[in-house]
Amino acid sequence: MSEHREETREETKPEAENRSSIAWRTLRLSGGDIEEKEDEIAAEFPLTIRLDGEEFATLVCSPDDLADLVFGFLASEGVIREADDIRNWSLDEQRGFAYVELQRPQSTAKELHSKRIIGSCCGKSRQFYFHNDARTARTITGGAAIPAERCFELMSRLQASSAGFHLTGGIHHAALCDETGDGLVVRADIGRHNALDKLFGHCLRRGLSTKRRIIAFSGRLSSEVVLKAAKIGCPILLSKSAPTDLALRLADDLGITCVGFIRADSLNVYTHPQRIVMPM
Amino acid sequence: MSEHREETREETKPEAENRSSIAWRTLRLSGGDIEEKEDEIAAEFPLTIRLDGEEFATLVCSPDDLADLVFGFLASEGVIREADDIRNWSLDEQRGFAYVELQRPQSTAKELHSKRIIGSCCGKSRQFYFHNDARTARTITGGAAIPAERCFELMSRLQASSAGFHLTGGIHHAALCDETGDGLVVRADIGRHNALDKLFGHCLRRGLSTKRRIIAFSGRLSSEVVLKAAKIGCPILLSKSAPTDLALRLADDLGITCVGFIRADSLNVYTHPQRIVMPM
Repeated sequence: MSEHREETREETKPEAENRSSIAWRTLRLSGGDIEEKEDEIAAEFPLTIRLDGEEFATLVCSPDDLADLVFGFLASEGVIREADDIRNWSLDEQRGFAYVELQRPQSTAKELHSKRIIGSCCGKSRQFYFHNDARTARTITGGAAIPAERCFELMSRLQASSAGFHLTGGIHHAALCDETGDGLVVRADIGRHNALDKLFGHCLRRGLSTKRRIIAFSGRLSSEVVLKAAKIGCPILLSKSAPTDLALRLADDLGITCVGFIRADSLNVYTHPQRIVMPM
Repeated sequence: MSEHREETREETKPEAENRSSIAWRTLRLSGGDIEEKEDEIAAEFPLTIRLDGEEFATLVCSPDDLADLVFGFLASEGVIREADDIRNWSLDEQRGFAYVELQRPQSTAKELHSKRIIGSCCGKSRQFYFHNDARTARTITGGAAIPAERCFELMSRLQASSAGFHLTGGIHHAALCDETGDGLVVRADIGRHNALDKLFGHCLRRGLSTKRRIIAFSGRLSSEVVLKAAKIGCPILLSKSAPTDLALRLADDLGITCVGFIRADSLNVYTHPQRIVMPM
């Protein structure tokens, strides 16, 4: 199986990289001047995952690192726990389909996929609203403290490593590294959640631990982003942007440290501040 | 029916407005100074729509203008064509449920909801990837030309009318107005598509025409945004942000003028430029 998998990845990777943006003839008005020019536009690609012969989900994504995306998405949805739970898979990049066969066909995840939980009492139980999240999100304990300075440093590195994407705009970036900032992996996608799933899938496919890692993210901290961090097992979540209230309530409950609005020399710590060491 | 609807709206509106953000105790580091303060955080609210007794979809949204959201979303999904297609509906804001009964129970939209279309040939047919989009998106013809100056003006007005939301960050705004800039309606949501659905629902519920209107949008122009404009029947789509390639191919095909990256004195016209009159 792993042979098949690696083969597919090697074959598709170079082509996929060329497809993440296209040129588009644009009429630009700037300061009163008008010019016609070629503009780089981010590619948007619908990828449908078929699970044991049935349509499971369609992800709208950037067409690179698709193998990471498929593995990460399925793990995040609770369909697989490790890469070996997939018996066989292939990608049809031309038509935008991923065909996945599981080792043990299972129906639970499919039935519960995006089914709403009806909480017994508002605000008293956990704020999950989908069954699969309640099954797969774990409470995080432990995880070392990092200096606030590392938050600024990681956000700068995230922006630097995503420089190539600034041409097109509208792309989200996510990075994963260890507590010292080592082993930084960056994934990009037009979909916020896809960038995180690609990181998750990257680790799963290579057997890398995701424990005690830091996630740095360009986008807003929504409940889904916090849930993905919990599923990955990551205690610290850094973002350039704003959080939502549900994200913070979940992070508080799941033991995740959320840091938002990380700009030049300022940041906000919203939850579990013990993991961020402030300057003296 | 309409009595019931208006009653629900009147009852829920004042409470809903108070719930769009909450205060959260935050540790802020800025320029070396540390302070503890109350921060305004955007509310994130899961709203599950039950259609004729069955779960149809869960929208993650800002908890205001929920009636507009339900009507707009169902119209956008092709479930209803006009407000009167709904026989009865009610909102349970406490638990986050909308209960909708249709005049004519229909199964097609439910079955096809988010089902992927398998195109016969890549790049030759229309780029729809969901069945419901192919059923409900219409090609736009006509629509007057507007001066480029109006694009800048509308984007400024969108930003001005959304000033209250700048406190929390991470909120998308959408405005609808006529070709002269009159009758501006603004809706906001943490979800990009929800802001557009709220505009659509607002017009449907009040019997307002959506023909020959302009949409100004704070977020990225994805394929879904262009499809929503087509469903609303809107020939001009303005955005502060970047487009995707699929959005532009769809807009080109559906006859929609897409203008992106509208900043202080610059903008890009990507499709059907005949509707934007450049300065002499």
